Amino acid sequence: MDVISVIRTKRDRGELSDEQIDWVIDAYTRGVVADEQMSALAMAILLNGMNRTEIARWTAAMIASGERMDFSSLSRPTADKHSTGGVGDKITLPLAPLVAACGAAVPQLSGRGLGHTGGTLDKLESIPGWRALLSNDEMLNVLDTVGSVICAAGDGLAPADKKLYALRDVTGTVEAIPLIASSIMSKKIAEGTGSLVLDVKVGTGAFMKTIEDARELASTMVELGTDSGVRTVALLTDMSTPLGLTAGNALEVRESVEVLAGGGPADVVELTLALAREMLDAAGIKDADPAKALADGSAMDVWRRMIAAQGGDPDAALPTSREQHVVVAGKSGVLTRLDAYDIGVAAWRLGAGRARKEDVVQAAAGVDLHAKPGDSVTEGQPLMTLHTDTPERFEYALESVEGSYDIAAPGTTFEATPVVRERIG
Amino acid sequence: MDVISVIRTKRDRGELSDEQIDWVIDAYTRGVVADEQMSALAMAILLNGMNRTEIARWTAAMIASGERMDFSSLSRPTADKHSTGGVGDKITLPLAPLVAACGAAVPQLSGRGLGHTGGTLDKLESIPGWRALLSNDEMLNVLDTVGSVICAAGDGLAPADKKLYALRDVTGTVEAIPLIASSIMSKKIAEGTGSLVLDVKVGTGAFMKTIEDARELASTMVELGTDSGVRTVALLTDMSTPLGLTAGNALEVRESVEVLAGGGPADVVELTLALAREMLDAAGIKDADPAKALADGSAMDVWRRMIAAQGGDPDAALPTSREQHVVVAGKSGVLTRLDAYDIGVAAWRLGAGRARKEDVVQAAAGVDLHAKPGDSVTEGQPLMTLHTDTPERFEYALESVEGSYDIAAPGTTFEATPVVRERIG
Repeated sequence: MDVISVIRTKRDRGELSDEQIDWVIDAYTRGVVADEQMSALAMAILLNGMNRTEIARWTAAMIASGERMDFSSLSRPTADKHSTGGVGDKITLPLAPLVAACGAAVPQLSGRGLGHTGGTLDKLESIPGWRALLSNDEMLNVLDTVGSVICAAGDGLAPADKKLYALRDVTGTVEAIPLIASSIMSKKIAEGTGSLVLDVKVGTGAFMKTIEDARELASTMVELGTDSGVRTVALLTDMSTPLGLTAGNALEVRESVEVLAGGGPADVVELTLALAREMLDAAGIKDADPAKALADGSAMDVWRRMIAAQGGDPDAALPTSREQHVVVAGKSGVLTRLDAYDIGVAAWRLGAGRARKEDVVQAAAGVDLHAKPGDSVTEGQPLMTLHTDTPERFEYALESVEGSYDIAAPGTTFEATPVVRERIG
Repeated sequence: MDVISVIRTKRDRGELSDEQIDWVIDAYTRGVVADEQMSALAMAILLNGMNRTEIARWTAAMIASGERMDFSSLSRPTADKHSTGGVGDKITLPLAPLVAACGAAVPQLSGRGLGHTGGTLDKLESIPGWRALLSNDEMLNVLDTVGSVICAAGDGLAPADKKLYALRDVTGTVEAIPLIASSIMSKKIAEGTGSLVLDVKVGTGAFMKTIEDARELASTMVELGTDSGVRTVALLTDMSTPLGLTAGNALEVRESVEVLAGGGPADVVELTLALAREMLDAAGIKDADPAKALADGSAMDVWRRMIAAQGGDPDAALPTSREQHVVVAGKSGVLTRLDAYDIGVAAWRLGAGRARKEDVVQAAAGVDLHAKPGDSVTEGQPLMTLHTDTPERFEYALESVEGSYDIAAPGTTFEATPVVRERIG
């Protein structure tokens, strides 16, 4: 077996054999196949695709590169969720304790933000004392005693994926559906969950800009999960506009706590409940009522215990920004567009995200939205507040805000995109 | 400027701007763009192509990465030739002294063999004492006093190409017409020749397997040369069967000397004369008769002086192989096929070529052919003799010989492919 013949096979639109895939993933993990060879193969895969047989084998080979976890010692059924990432997507924060309050064990091995989408761990780290890094034993212990845990994925899961993801990030080969699907599913299957709900984002603020691409990614992942014995469903959800009214770390924690307290923006509540019902259904839990668990404080109770179990103080004040800048409506009318990507970039430029892995994020930076598409606004009314600790960033962030919204004539009818667009699985 | 946006442009079938091309070639040469990024870009170029504007800029950027040579101090016009490489392609050896004997200055900066095609320098190194490595001053001196020189290209010419070629070789991205064309032409233009004749091989033993691909490569290179002020023409020539009756280093030197002595196989003589006439025409030399220069010994005289000027002894006996194996015809009939690729692989396996750059070649290894397509053969008649110093290689070489030829029923009519198939320019 040699790597050039593997590259040539895919370059010339052939199908990679099981032996070629097993060999190339193992050899890349061991450093026998060089980065420049793997990136050429990744580009050939991006441009010429992989069929379902190839994707399944590629995923299995990445799982085999590392350890597998086992949740079978837990008394409750496990239910996991994965989102492909968006702007203002804080859903994991209220969702994990909510589903745990309804009787499932919810392990959420999460990541940090890179580029314009935020990271769940960055958000939770704005809570004083909270720790993302747990050992496998600590993680299992929190999961067993509290019911849910949100922490960093260990190095032992799918190391081939870790190495390949870092390579794709610097070689323009991130946007390949077969590679995205196998990257996500290799970690989820290796993690050992019994059921999985995928939140596949569609729109300007998401990786998948079109419903067709999102459908292909979702059905690829549902098939991969199902074939590996994980009950898997996917919701295709809107990411043309930010979720909720906040984008930024501490700002999103505040909004999540509002949802857990029975309030919060309608779209965040709707998506949290839709995903909770899918997770409970996939985990085989029949009689739970997640809306009730939000209303009666039982979800909030799990949240507080989960934060405390990882060293955080659920009662501590969240950091606030040193400087604010208010953007006001230039005319009266109906807000018809508020672009998720532009707002995500603005939050990132304000300091909420990182350009490189080693960057430090600002806990208090981000955007507070005061109006959402469909709302009527009057001239001079605040549309959003920008937060940062480093005010020299305002100008650069405002460049992204400038083209992010449209105000149409008063009385213009507006047809909202539903939060949940399709279900696959 | 950042490399990921350059990769994405080509990945998404866009046109690279002048600024993107200049930046990426310079940054790659300086090590700012990493190998894994350049190989992803090379794969995107291979699969999505470059237009003529992009190829011209890419070539110019590679030329700008290094030094340019200047032959304007020479009293004679310069005429250069480049072959895309084939099996038994020893044409440079008789051609360079022949064209010099007719009045041109012929600089041949040549390479070594890799894979199944032989290298001009490897062939000449089978002559005792001959040196491939000359300084620029030595090279110019031989060219000025003898009229022709065949030597290794210096490190100063197009270093970007040197680095990129080594990368393409290990990443499955060699077979991209824009990259092949710009690689060849950047070196030829930087070298400073006034005219250039391209021998673009077509057939199983060549990079270009089809006449369409060969036409595209040839016309791309002719346009690049012409646009840079180099009078450039291309001949598309047959490489479905080996050129002449030898493949291997010393074997090919012997055959080249036969041609210079007025003999040699008809196809080698025909192609040598065709290329000589094109080179003299492109150099603006009108009244020379290359056939006469072969017949009257004047080409042989230049050859002897050229070999001697580089330390070689033109009268020394050439190395002969320690072991031989004769392949005989299994039946009587007409030889209708003798595959260039298979014979090239056999010669390579016998020790004439190298698998890695650091390998040492055997001077005496190779294949002597006793029949060519169109010849009638009788059962038991020798078809070819295999030569090597390491007889354990015979078995592996014979595997490639086995399927290399067809013998049809006696009296079968055979239509030969002409040596020169088309002319472009």
